[in-house]
Amino acid sequence: MTDAAGLNVQLLLTGDELMTGDIVDSNSVMIADALMPLGLVLSRKVVVGDKLSVLVKEIEWITEQADVLIVNGGLGPTIDDLTAEALAQVLDVPLEEHAVAMAQLSAWCERRNYPLNGPNKKQARLPKGVGIIENPVGSAPGFKMIHSGCLIMCTPGVPIELDAMLTSGIVPQLKGMCDQAFTQIKKYQVFGMGEAPLQKIIEESYPDWPQEIELGFRAAFPILDVKLTARSQAGIDLLPVWQTKIESTLGAHSLGEVTDEESTGMAQHVVTLLVEKNQTLTTAESCTGGLIASKITSVSGSSNVFEAGVVSYSNDIKHKVLGVSQKTLKQHGAVSEEVVLQMAAGALDISGADYGVAVSGIAGPGGGSEDKPVGTCWLAWGTKASLKAVKLFFPSNRAYFQDYIATAALDVIRRDILEVKETPRYFSNKKPS
Amino acid sequence: MTDAAGLNVQLLLTGDELMTGDIVDSNSVMIADALMPLGLVLSRKVVVGDKLSVLVKEIEWITEQADVLIVNGGLGPTIDDLTAEALAQVLDVPLEEHAVAMAQLSAWCERRNYPLNGPNKKQARLPKGVGIIENPVGSAPGFKMIHSGCLIMCTPGVPIELDAMLTSGIVPQLKGMCDQAFTQIKKYQVFGMGEAPLQKIIEESYPDWPQEIELGFRAAFPILDVKLTARSQAGIDLLPVWQTKIESTLGAHSLGEVTDEESTGMAQHVVTLLVEKNQTLTTAESCTGGLIASKITSVSGSSNVFEAGVVSYSNDIKHKVLGVSQKTLKQHGAVSEEVVLQMAAGALDISGADYGVAVSGIAGPGGGSEDKPVGTCWLAWGTKASLKAVKLFFPSNRAYFQDYIATAALDVIRRDILEVKETPRYFSNKKPS
Repeated sequence: MTDAAGLNVQLLLTGDELMTGDIVDSNSVMIADALMPLGLVLSRKVVVGDKLSVLVKEIEWITEQADVLIVNGGLGPTIDDLTAEALAQVLDVPLEEHAVAMAQLSAWCERRNYPLNGPNKKQARLPKGVGIIENPVGSAPGFKMIHSGCLIMCTPGVPIELDAMLTSGIVPQLKGMCDQAFTQIKKYQVFGMGEAPLQKIIEESYPDWPQEIELGFRAAFPILDVKLTARSQAGIDLLPVWQTKIESTLGAHSLGEVTDEESTGMAQHVVTLLVEKNQTLTTAESCTGGLIASKITSVSGSSNVFEAGVVSYSNDIKHKVLGVSQKTLKQHGAVSEEVVLQMAAGALDISGADYGVAVSGIAGPGGGSEDKPVGTCWLAWGTKASLKAVKLFFPSNRAYFQDYIATAALDVIRRDILEVKETPRYFSNKKPS
Repeated sequence: MTDAAGLNVQLLLTGDELMTGDIVDSNSVMIADALMPLGLVLSRKVVVGDKLSVLVKEIEWITEQADVLIVNGGLGPTIDDLTAEALAQVLDVPLEEHAVAMAQLSAWCERRNYPLNGPNKKQARLPKGVGIIENPVGSAPGFKMIHSGCLIMCTPGVPIELDAMLTSGIVPQLKGMCDQAFTQIKKYQVFGMGEAPLQKIIEESYPDWPQEIELGFRAAFPILDVKLTARSQAGIDLLPVWQTKIESTLGAHSLGEVTDEESTGMAQHVVTLLVEKNQTLTTAESCTGGLIASKITSVSGSSNVFEAGVVSYSNDIKHKVLGVSQKTLKQHGAVSEEVVLQMAAGALDISGADYGVAVSGIAGPGGGSEDKPVGTCWLAWGTKASLKAVKLFFPSNRAYFQDYIATAALDVIRRDILEVKETPRYFSNKKPS
């Protein structure tokens, strides 16, 4: 597989620690990120432990297919650092002390006043004939060579060293190999529309979806990331038109285009909107148990828009703190339209906030009934002058239920502030009757 | 390469999002962790994008070498989910609707009152003749088959679904394939002791630490997992003695040995203890903004021990709801010993709970002063008859600060219930003076 820039780039990561579950591989994300602006996407990643025969076999196999192989890890001073030895076997050349590598290594030790010991010197013993990739921050030099028409670049596993080497040596070389940057990406955060229904809507609405624009989804529960990727000039030219179409399909389910790398999330959106309008919010939570407040206050600057929240888990507290009438509780039960409306009104009274939101539901696993099964939740929201309520149904495990309901509670506030007219799709999730 | 248990196990991860740097692969860590107690170590991991021909080639190549291949990802409802199609090509059989898969899928949709639409149905179209691996939590069933003497098991990419499937279907099957378990692991959850200080204490206290017992750490902030692993009979024989030693080193910083696969976490411990003692807890939160309450109520059954929590972000609410005196607020400021003590007392009064905990601090990034820099937090806790307070200092980013303080707030309650005499190490984190 080659990508838009016409190169098949593969990655080989080595290290026992990557196999045992002791460590999460973040280097491959760093490498993929570095390649992206060049229009390059990794076509394959292979991860193996520190075994010489396995490494040799893997390198031989990959170099038969790939244009570029980036090897990451195994350049250190210890006996389980085997990359140089493996490459020597693949190239069928001896290992020998590399003059340029040795000079860099000596300079590095000297700057730190470290003795240049045996294990360190091992890092300068490289397959005969390779070129050096300078390591601006660490002791292990990188090295490169061509084998079977494949450019092999060997890089250190230490993230900070890899990062420096990508910037100074690897990306510039690959840039020269690519003609131009072809990739452009547009990304949206979506709440309240699942991947399957969205896919169906898009298939039905746009049978003529152009193949130049890849449509991708990532479920970052409860948010769905929707991504349009163009990897060619034709795709880039088409992008604005199809952006408009997808935006109209998503409607207010979209939190907007994500322009930077950070996923901002629902709470950030709500806090930003409240700050803009100079308004405040309060919460009264039963089944979410503080999660709505916690999401809001995770945003820095939220103290400007949020003064008070109440977690009223018991009926007694709903009455005592929020002023829900005992009669209502008795007559309708805690999970009811009447109770959430009174909870929201109570929280607005206590706090003097502009917007209030209240939830009461059954998170499970226990507590469900035929009439109100696990997953049922009443949600009330709005201003003192205009409180609304809706019954939601989201049967799932406890954590997912709480996260979804807390996000929905923020979403209805977001929609109110934005004066959205359309009804969110999740309002119509109903329990089977 | 085969491991101690005599099996060559390989992993194939699929998904464009794993190639582009959009996502860090944590599933392979989950799989490696699940295999570990069986004495199984992955010999090779391969990651590829959503391209049918690439998947087919990869599966063919791996099944030639491996005894077990776990395929992860590509089981979803969308067109870029290609695992079933790839396997059908490898096995040279057609895709057809699988009766068992269809029944599971229908039941899943019915429980949620979702229509069973085309994209969903796709998840039940599997290569002819495969067996089903039940998915206890999601819509995509897993499936398995044998090809070229290699057991292939296809699993979903959604972490929560993978986790459930590993426990219920995959590990039991692999267990049967291993002759015996060579590996024994003892794991502890630790709060309030960092990896570096703990490592130093252990090195100094136990210079004779046996090489048959591996000592491992994994930071699952704010909890540190400490793991003793014995991979030989000699190690297993030595384990009880060294378990006792490490337990005495950790003291009450350890939440106890983790005996099952689930990491229980601090809140679960506290809820379990409260249930055992038939006692209740209340919270009054400023800087953690509901996170303590949210952690407690994330535990199922917490409604038996938690009735009320107040998020009092503003001084006004601290006074109005919790009864903190205006004079105290003015004289000492919101982040003070006096205020947190009154907050805790107020929450105890409102709720009638047995234990109360209150926090007020500066999460940052704004709001710090020379006297009370970002990271400062006053914590009060105890019973109505005995309230204590301590100043903590944990300068970090906002999310880490909130998580650490919320966990510490639960930890002091845990220590109170357990009547621990020793002072936690984090009480002595002070700002440089």
